[in-house]
Amino acid sequence: MPIEVSARHLHITAEDFNFLFEKKEPSFLKKLGQNQFAAKETVELINKQKSIKKVRVVAPFRDKTQVEISVTDAINLGIKPVIRISGSLKNTPAIEIKSPRGKLRIKEGVIVAQRHLHLNSNEAKKLGLKNKDIISVLAKGKRSVLFNNVVVRVSSQYNLCVHLDSDEGNAAGIFKKGTGYLIYYCLKYPRKSAF
Amino acid sequence: MPIEVSARHLHITAEDFNFLFEKKEPSFLKKLGQNQFAAKETVELINKQKSIKKVRVVAPFRDKTQVEISVTDAINLGIKPVIRISGSLKNTPAIEIKSPRGKLRIKEGVIVAQRHLHLNSNEAKKLGLKNKDIISVLAKGKRSVLFNNVVVRVSSQYNLCVHLDSDEGNAAGIFKKGTGYLIYYCLKYPRKSAF
Repeated sequence: MPIEVSARHLHITAEDFNFLFEKKEPSFLKKLGQNQFAAKETVELINKQKSIKKVRVVAPFRDKTQVEISVTDAINLGIKPVIRISGSLKNTPAIEIKSPRGKLRIKEGVIVAQRHLHLNSNEAKKLGLKNKDIISVLAKGKRSVLFNNVVVRVSSQYNLCVHLDSDEGNAAGIFKKGTGYLIYYCLKYPRKSAF
Repeated sequence: MPIEVSARHLHITAEDFNFLFEKKEPSFLKKLGQNQFAAKETVELINKQKSIKKVRVVAPFRDKTQVEISVTDAINLGIKPVIRISGSLKNTPAIEIKSPRGKLRIKEGVIVAQRHLHLNSNEAKKLGLKNKDIISVLAKGKRSVLFNNVVVRVSSQYNLCVHLDSDEGNAAGIFKKGTGYLIYYCLKYPRKSAF
């Protein structure tokens, strides 16, 4: 299965985008998977005295503004890393989001994305998977890693791709793109019989 | 098995230490595993315009000066990440090492440490392992990961502990210390029969 490593990025509501950039639509920079695109617009993430610059906006708009960072980023920002699936933002950390034109504070919405597999229902059927299944994904090579607890996410908008964050990519020696192998059974965690 | 996450650090020769700090011995800060200690002395790592400050010296002295960083650090420094076991420095990247008193350029010696298990010969015997064996180590929990290609390193100086770098720790949700499970057989890579 194809693997993509997601760098830190920002999903944003139309309202928050309009506040931060005083325009209606993000400018297209680059096509991404899953019917999304990277925008030309970037923001700075600020927590107290710490900040990370040039964090890219990913379009299209979402219902809630959501910041996706790695655990390394969370440590650098002094924020507790909270592992969540996209959209599950209740009781996640707050942050300040700064653009050249303004500064916005979101009360919650900072997550470290739980590793996941995107695919559409045809692909899911072929692989015998359904939405919310938990699988494992093997990355081979010198830094071979088996990622457990990979959440399956099925949608007509999706195409087959495993998403890791940058810590996970670096730990497995995968830069931007790589290949993984679906493991249905071997060390799906928890698997009481194995231990 | 206990797991420890190693932050970036510097092993140093007596000669290089003396050049950088104009003293004979590192000052004791904190005991580490494997009969080592963290020194009070820190350095700055510099590559072209990029740098990382406050990189700790680990004592006692080594035969060669060696800088251990994570893949994230390598990317931040603009250096190619080269995965090696400790001491295997041939054709590894160069770097500048700066102290308050001087600046040193090493022609090679920057590595990303290959994940490894330290243990002494009694522990190795009990576990049926020998030096240079390759094992896998399972970290459980929400970010459960099976680390393959973990090198076994046996020495009378060692005590049982798995060493990961900070990317690997972050990818597995392990901060500083954690627990892993020795997997002898399941997905030892490469294992032709499994794929």
